[in-house]
Amino acid sequence: MELTAISFFDLVRADLKAVEAELRAAIPEHPQALNAAVNRLVSSGGKRLRPTLALLAARLLDCDRQKMVWVAAAIETLHTATLVHDDLVDGSLLRRGLPTLNVAWSPSATVLTGDYLFARAAQFAAKTDSVPLTHEFARTLETIISGELNQLFASQSPASRDAYFERIYAKTAALFALAAQAAALLTSADEAICEALRTFGREMGMAFQIMDDILDFAGDESKLGKPVGSDLRQGLITLPALCYLETQPGDRDLAAVLKGARNSQTVARAVQAVICSGAIDAARQEAQAYVARAHAALALLPDNAYRHGLAEMADYVVRRNV
Amino acid sequence: MELTAISFFDLVRADLKAVEAELRAAIPEHPQALNAAVNRLVSSGGKRLRPTLALLAARLLDCDRQKMVWVAAAIETLHTATLVHDDLVDGSLLRRGLPTLNVAWSPSATVLTGDYLFARAAQFAAKTDSVPLTHEFARTLETIISGELNQLFASQSPASRDAYFERIYAKTAALFALAAQAAALLTSADEAICEALRTFGREMGMAFQIMDDILDFAGDESKLGKPVGSDLRQGLITLPALCYLETQPGDRDLAAVLKGARNSQTVARAVQAVICSGAIDAARQEAQAYVARAHAALALLPDNAYRHGLAEMADYVVRRNV
Repeated sequence: MELTAISFFDLVRADLKAVEAELRAAIPEHPQALNAAVNRLVSSGGKRLRPTLALLAARLLDCDRQKMVWVAAAIETLHTATLVHDDLVDGSLLRRGLPTLNVAWSPSATVLTGDYLFARAAQFAAKTDSVPLTHEFARTLETIISGELNQLFASQSPASRDAYFERIYAKTAALFALAAQAAALLTSADEAICEALRTFGREMGMAFQIMDDILDFAGDESKLGKPVGSDLRQGLITLPALCYLETQPGDRDLAAVLKGARNSQTVARAVQAVICSGAIDAARQEAQAYVARAHAALALLPDNAYRHGLAEMADYVVRRNV
Repeated sequence: MELTAISFFDLVRADLKAVEAELRAAIPEHPQALNAAVNRLVSSGGKRLRPTLALLAARLLDCDRQKMVWVAAAIETLHTATLVHDDLVDGSLLRRGLPTLNVAWSPSATVLTGDYLFARAAQFAAKTDSVPLTHEFARTLETIISGELNQLFASQSPASRDAYFERIYAKTAALFALAAQAAALLTSADEAICEALRTFGREMGMAFQIMDDILDFAGDESKLGKPVGSDLRQGLITLPALCYLETQPGDRDLAAVLKGARNSQTVARAVQAVICSGAIDAARQEAQAYVARAHAALALLPDNAYRHGLAEMADYVVRRNV
């Protein structure tokens, strides 16, 4: 499925252009190297799913155009800020096939550039002049960072579904929920509409992250821009491995990896075992169940082209191969 | 001048207690180590000048009590967040005589704990339900971080007054200005009142930072909790050294340090030369000129005990010895 053929992006193509312009705006007083780095960071921004989600929901609710552009820019900038610090924390060398900022820059410059993106995101959010949006924005930031801290403080990744779902909510679904709900907050929509959009975003976000975790096992390395099995290699247990463990609780390689073994042959065997089992399909079915719940949440919303776009988007997140 | 004898703190003693409670509130779901670290970070918080400033201005304008507590907590938490990342960026080992977080924790945990404090600060700010406060809060964060980035990207500290004053505005005076102005934003005070408070905070903040920079040369090491001359040792030129250079433009030691020499004897001689010259007094006079402008800004405000408290505070920042 090619990106260019996907119609839900087309519904907000012009709005996305305006968001891009906000994201890339250089600050004349800033060092040229910083402007260039910020531009590179926001330009390598992948598929722009989060701003697209925010814009589709905003068009659905007939939200003020300038405000929807700012809120979409706030969400994408916040996302980029967390990635910059994430890559530093994880010591990641590649993201989307390109070197991370921490490869080229000192840790100091990377920390401050992430901070700068947080500040910029807060400014975009403030521009909407919306108290409820500001509350949710701050709360979501707290959820994301607390999730990362919990992960860092856990001595090892707990092999439990509850811990996994809690982690991917904080890591991904919380921001999707904010993106989906933002326009409802900006337009003071009915509580039921707000809740339906929030549910839609959260469930789609969960499905999106499960797919990401599936692709980490079963994806195409050249498209992912990183080797398969990288989560397990870092001792991080995700849904495919959890599904595998449920049918093969005695697997020695996976048990060793979960106990801290980082021997590349052991990890490679564990990754292969997960790939060759029914675990990938089982995980995919769970992602599809989330998408089904996302679809169900749409029923409350006005039936128009944008609602269809949101439905398409939910289907897309589990069909994508990158 | 002992802290306990200073009456301006007493004017808002009860409010400060409420701020402390907000700052130290543990989050039950968080790892115990994180709660302990956050508590330690906010407890070693020095003199609480910024929240005291915010509270005095709030009492002066008869601001809602709960909102003033939140805004003071937001400002102190933001300040703490920037210090955590600052110490990491600078590789500082001590702050206020205690080991910095980056000494005890990994860079990763330090980055995320700083991020967490940013999120917590944003949540306190959002609780005030004030759009103008949210705007200023985000703008101030951007000013602070941009200032640090500019400093990091400058290949060496420029020996110019303009650059120095711009840097200390971003580093210190911007947040003092926000603290002083916050209550005016929360109470929708007249623009003239808002501007007078902002000016008061900014000018006092400039004086405060100049005094900090003087104490870095002329302070008592045991009280400062760090060796004298640490700025110059890091190649950072501050007002005392600038004043010295204006009378002794040919000083070889200082010229060598500014060109990057970090030889401890050269640095020690440069520090001694600045201390023994009239530069400390000259810098102190400039700090006092800022305080005089801060006093002048107060004239527009209602004449009550809190205005007197603010005036006392401005005098205090240039009289303190730590």
